[in-house]
Amino acid sequence: MPEVVVYSVGNRSQDQKRGLCKDITDAVMKHYGAPAEAVVVTLVETPKTDKAKAGVLFSEMPPR
Amino acid sequence: MPEVVVYSVGNRSQDQKRGLCKDITDAVMKHYGAPAEAVVVTLVETPKTDKAKAGVLFSEMPPR
Amino acid sequence: MPEVVVYSVGNRSQDQKRGLCKDITDAVMKHYGAPAEAVVVTLVETPKTDKAKAGVLFSEMPPR
Amino acid sequence: MPEVVVYSVGNRSQDQKRGLCKDITDAVMKHYGAPAEAVVVTLVETPKTDKAKAGVLFSEMPPR
Amino acid sequence: MPEVVVYSVGNRSQDQKRGLCKDITDAVMKHYGAPAEAVVVTLVETPKTDKAKAGVLFSEMPPR
Amino acid sequence: MPEVVVYSVGNRSQDQKRGLCKDITDAVMKHYGAPAEAVVVTLVETPKTDKAKAGVLFSEMPPR
Repeated sequence: MPEVVVYSVGNRSQDQKRGLCKDITDAVMKHYGAPAEAVVVTLVETPKTDKAKAGVLFSEMPPR
Repeated sequence: MPEVVVYSVGNRSQDQKRGLCKDITDAVMKHYGAPAEAVVVTLVETPKTDKAKAGVLFSEMPPR
Repeated sequence: MPEVVVYSVGNRSQDQKRGLCKDITDAVMKHYGAPAEAVVVTLVETPKTDKAKAGVLFSEMPPR
Repeated sequence: MPEVVVYSVGNRSQDQKRGLCKDITDAVMKHYGAPAEAVVVTLVETPKTDKAKAGVLFSEMPPR
Repeated sequence: MPEVVVYSVGNRSQDQKRGLCKDITDAVMKHYGAPAEAVVVTLVETPKTDKAKAGVLFSEMPPR
Repeated sequence: MPEVVVYSVGNRSQDQKRGLCKDITDAVMKHYGAPAEAVVVTLVETPKTDKAKAGVLFSEMPPR
């Protein structure tokens, strides 16, 4: 503890995941004083068909 | 914000997902006064092998 | 099941909560075909001091 | 209700999942006095590429 | 890890909480083979005004 | 989106919360390429009576 859950859409590369987990862990250690091994980060990647913003599924949004 | 997470079992059709996200977003806008673009809905679909009710996995429930 | 969790900031009135839970439940019943008594909605109200958008706590945002 | 969500890494066997859901349900019934059919357990299995401890992804940890 | 989150309504006694956390931890150790110190259980107690079943807030349900 | 939820125990100061939310938001922007205003961080602070590690409530752990 602390446990961090990140909900995002689509697929990220291994580099993106590694970097995000590392920096979030550092932030928790720095600000909350938690030891490294107590920090767990879970990435929940939701398919674009299963997530919506403003009532529109990401899979059905027009390309920007 | 607000963020809504819906945990369900099995697979829904795209029509079901679209309709649910749309109506939940409308409900949040209507009752909480949130602007559309602030409302994010995440659907977490759990396989029947990974969810249980009354201690029995959905994948092992007798057909009704 | 399904279970719905709504994360919002600040305090809502009982009327707002009642209306939101009712409409979300109706949406789940309509689109997912779930029976009423299977739908559970949990409202997680986070204090403005404990939630941030764009890196700024809601308690420290300038009034709009 | 209560609803229980278990976040773990990797893949478990059907026997492990069945046993865990059964025992967690029993624990909720015993200590909280909930009826069996009110207890829902959701298992969220995160791939080793999507979860980190101490800032290191499980997929990149050295074997122990 | 694993991390377990239990969403329930109302207030439980310290004895109930202690017992539930103990038994859930034992279940995770037994079935998933996790070491004790890796298991974290978080109890999220929602006020009866903030949780609904079948579209009705627990605070407004008729007494049974 | 992305939405980040941080589960921790006990009470943190406003400075700690501000710093954590800022740095997590920066990490999400840097690694996932998300615009600032799309990143929402929710801090769920659980009382020591409601969270356990290794089956022991934080409120009942011996002082270290």
